[in-house]
Amino acid sequence: MRIGIIGTGTVGRTLGGKLVALGHEVTLGSRSKGNAAAEDWAARTGPLAHPGTFAEAAAFGDLVINATGGTVALAAVELAGPENLAGKTLLDVSNPLVFAPDGEVTLDPVNDDSIGERLQRALPDTKVVKALNTVNCEVMVDPGRVPGEHQLFVAGEDAGAKAQVTALLGEFGWPADAVLDLGGIDAARGLEMLMPFWLRLMRHYGHADFNYAIRTAR
Amino acid sequence: MRIGIIGTGTVGRTLGGKLVALGHEVTLGSRSKGNAAAEDWAARTGPLAHPGTFAEAAAFGDLVINATGGTVALAAVELAGPENLAGKTLLDVSNPLVFAPDGEVTLDPVNDDSIGERLQRALPDTKVVKALNTVNCEVMVDPGRVPGEHQLFVAGEDAGAKAQVTALLGEFGWPADAVLDLGGIDAARGLEMLMPFWLRLMRHYGHADFNYAIRTAR
Repeated sequence: MRIGIIGTGTVGRTLGGKLVALGHEVTLGSRSKGNAAAEDWAARTGPLAHPGTFAEAAAFGDLVINATGGTVALAAVELAGPENLAGKTLLDVSNPLVFAPDGEVTLDPVNDDSIGERLQRALPDTKVVKALNTVNCEVMVDPGRVPGEHQLFVAGEDAGAKAQVTALLGEFGWPADAVLDLGGIDAARGLEMLMPFWLRLMRHYGHADFNYAIRTAR
Repeated sequence: MRIGIIGTGTVGRTLGGKLVALGHEVTLGSRSKGNAAAEDWAARTGPLAHPGTFAEAAAFGDLVINATGGTVALAAVELAGPENLAGKTLLDVSNPLVFAPDGEVTLDPVNDDSIGERLQRALPDTKVVKALNTVNCEVMVDPGRVPGEHQLFVAGEDAGAKAQVTALLGEFGWPADAVLDLGGIDAARGLEMLMPFWLRLMRHYGHADFNYAIRTAR
C-alpha cells in the first residue's frame, strides 16, 4: 500500500521504517521541502521510502498517518490540503501535549474536545481513526516488546476505516482481538486523556515498554 | 479501626459495609443530620455502623474516606471541619464528574488540577491519598470480581499514609504488589483523567467489572 506520513519526528520515522520493512511505499512529509530529517530517513530506509512535504505525503498515501505533535495537527493538515485527504483514512496517533517551561505537561485540547475530533471536523470528507496514541512508538510497531497480552483501542465514525486500521495494526503484530473498538471519534477524548497517567507510569517504571491490558469479568 | 466516611452515596455505603464486615467501626456522614440513607444503612449494617454528619464522621475516624461526588468534595470537607481531619489520613476515592443535560460527561477540575490536589491544599494538616477512584465500588471491595491480576494506584505526599491505605486495600483483597505508587498527590490528575476512558470501556463491555492490568517489560 502507499502510505503518507505527516510529521518527521521519532513517531513518524519509526512508523515509516516499519511500514517500509513490511513492503509498503511511504512518503514522509515535512512542513517544508528539503527537510533534513525526512531526507536522511529516506536515504537510510531504502527505495520504498521518500521524503516530501505534508501535501506530497497526503496526496501520495492511500492511507495517511498524522504523526505530528497533537497541538500542531490542525495546522499540519491544513498545509497537507484537505483535498489531498478527501475520501481517505487518516490514522491519528498524536497526543496534544503542552510542555511548560517548569516541566509540567498538560493537554490542549482536553475534556470537552480532542485532536481526533478536531481533525474529523476540519476534514469532513476524510475518515479519521484515532489509534496507537496510547503506547510508545517502539511498542506501536513491535508489541512483543511488552510481554503477555495487552491492548490497543480504535475510535472513529467509519467502521470500514477502523477495520482498515485494525488490519494495519495486525501487520505491526497486534492480534485483531487485542484491538478494542471504543466507538465514535469522541472516544478520542478518553484515549488522549490517558497521557498524564501514561507519563506517571513511565516515571514509575523508568522506561516506556509497558501497555494496558484490560481485565474483564466476561 | 474507627473509620469515617464522608458521603452516603453508593460508593460510601459499599465501602462502609465492607469495612464493617471486616470488623471496623464506621460512621457514615451526610450533609445534614437524620439523613435517611445513612440511618437505613446503619440499621441494616449492624452495631459497628453509625449514621452521622460530615463533621461527626470526620471526628470519629482515625482514617477518613472522601466518598462524595468529586465536584462537591471541597464543600464537604469544609463542612466536615479541617480541624476534625488534622493529622489524619484522608483517602479520596472521588472523581470530578460533571453530567450535562445532553448526557455528556466531563471533569472539573481537570488537566492542571485535580480533586486530590485541591483537598490537599485545603487541608494542609491532613495526609490526602488518592486511590480506588479507578474502579467501580463493587470492585473496590471485591477485586476477585475481575479475574486475573490487575492493579490499583496510590498518590499522595506522605509515605506513611500511602502505606496505611495500601494496608487497608490489602484487607479488601488487593495484594500489596498490585498497588502501584505513582508519586505525589499531583498524580491524582492522571488517575482522575482515566474516567472518560473508563466510561467508554464500561459502554464497550456493558458492565463495570473490569480493571487495568499494566503489562511491563521489566
